Amino acid sequence: MPRISVIGLGAMGRPIAHNLLGAGYEVTVWNRSPRPVEELVAAGATAAPTLAEAFATGTVISMVSNDEVFAQLFLDSDVLAHAPADSVHINMATVSTELARRAAAVHAEHGVGYLSAPVFGRVAAAEAGRLTVIVGGPAALRERVQPVFDVIGASSWPMGERAEQASIVKILGNYLIACAIQSMGEAVSLAERSGVDAAELITLLSSTLFQGPAYASYGALIAAHEYTPAGFTTTLGRKDLHLALDVAERTGVTLPVGEVLRRAFDQAIADGRADEDWASIAEQQQSATGPR
Amino acid sequence: MPRISVIGLGAMGRPIAHNLLGAGYEVTVWNRSPRPVEELVAAGATAAPTLAEAFATGTVISMVSNDEVFAQLFLDSDVLAHAPADSVHINMATVSTELARRAAAVHAEHGVGYLSAPVFGRVAAAEAGRLTVIVGGPAALRERVQPVFDVIGASSWPMGERAEQASIVKILGNYLIACAIQSMGEAVSLAERSGVDAAELITLLSSTLFQGPAYASYGALIAAHEYTPAGFTTTLGRKDLHLALDVAERTGVTLPVGEVLRRAFDQAIADGRADEDWASIAEQQQSATGPR
Repeated sequence: MPRISVIGLGAMGRPIAHNLLGAGYEVTVWNRSPRPVEELVAAGATAAPTLAEAFATGTVISMVSNDEVFAQLFLDSDVLAHAPADSVHINMATVSTELARRAAAVHAEHGVGYLSAPVFGRVAAAEAGRLTVIVGGPAALRERVQPVFDVIGASSWPMGERAEQASIVKILGNYLIACAIQSMGEAVSLAERSGVDAAELITLLSSTLFQGPAYASYGALIAAHEYTPAGFTTTLGRKDLHLALDVAERTGVTLPVGEVLRRAFDQAIADGRADEDWASIAEQQQSATGPR
Repeated sequence: MPRISVIGLGAMGRPIAHNLLGAGYEVTVWNRSPRPVEELVAAGATAAPTLAEAFATGTVISMVSNDEVFAQLFLDSDVLAHAPADSVHINMATVSTELARRAAAVHAEHGVGYLSAPVFGRVAAAEAGRLTVIVGGPAALRERVQPVFDVIGASSWPMGERAEQASIVKILGNYLIACAIQSMGEAVSLAERSGVDAAELITLLSSTLFQGPAYASYGALIAAHEYTPAGFTTTLGRKDLHLALDVAERTGVTLPVGEVLRRAFDQAIADGRADEDWASIAEQQQSATGPR
């Protein structure tokens, strides 16, 4: 039975660990808070008492919340120094490109294989093993862990030999979702003010020109003006938007829609929508002075 | 054999007329310039010597280029006054909501049935009879001409009893396409500056999050930086954007992305891209001062 560790049992890490168990893996887990560890142990996983012991399986998936946590756990600790030879660490979190580069370098120093494998898909997709996995890193490593991606994802997409290439793709995918949310918010407002049924508009568009989950799922939330419970919060959305704005600034690309989104996220959070679904940025198109 | 007239044999009107001929309709055609009339007559259509004679079939499709031409031909002429009782006019062009309202009123005055039925889909979709038809107008009229929509379109969508409701939906669909073009242009620029293959990015996104023709077809043009021949020109795109901006202004809705698009279209046209595909607005994200 192949062994694998899952580090970080949040909303996404938990279903990923469950699916690996279900697929017959011997799963070791580690998490900062104990509750999800207990749940996974009850389902058949083994709890690693330390992060170093989680690395002992030789194949490690981590899904932690942000750059800071990732750096603290894996780059600024001695975990990699004690990792077994030939081990591989698959980072599935969305991180900045700087962190992706630094992580690849630090893992290389310690002779630990490193893949960046962020995912598209919300919790339901993770539960169903239907995530879209974006993979950056050496082809040989990727091929070695492909069976793992096949359990987790509906499809996996190699995007280059460098870890940061996967980060860029993930950041751009989220950027385009945010753009779609904003523009659907504008269209839905215009429809409502013009006597067109917004839900019918979204159904039509997401059945024809704009098929696929981004328009259909966020469009439905926007047409219904329903943003709780959040699948992905406005706070997290703003974090990911800033990853895109940072890359743009560093590479000399202008993002005119990104500037619109920066204001929309800031305003949504000021309006108390931090913990609502990030589709709630769509709620800001009515002019204070306009007729209704 | 049911009779139908097609008025306006441009890029879209021609294939629509051909498909109606192919489906067994007795097709009468009228066009301001003679060349496409000759082509349709060679394919089996009858040329109407005057617009009034085109209306004599009792079922008329028109697909003319803009509000002004539509008003001149149908509203400011005496054509409707001489239309046979119980006739119906199906306007498939994208027109402003003001024109949609005025057209409905003028047709009603003359007892001529009026449907607004703008379409989504480019020339290839028209040729294949795979357009998406948006229908605004009385249900009884719509049901009467449903067999015509079934020849022209892959699907048809009733969006309300008022003609202008179909106009709004068409305007919003085009608005969302323009938003998608702009945001893909930003994402492709960022990808290229960051060492990510733009064509692979588009393939990935349009296979997963953003399925459907809008992202796939415009994304491919943007990733290839290929904007000729135009499927729909930048000039026409700007015209349709202004239809959305006008509705927004009239109804008191703000369109922050629409303002970005207004500048993008103006700049693209200033850059000589008026006759290129409207996806060419995507070519403006590189900062003059940024590194490459």
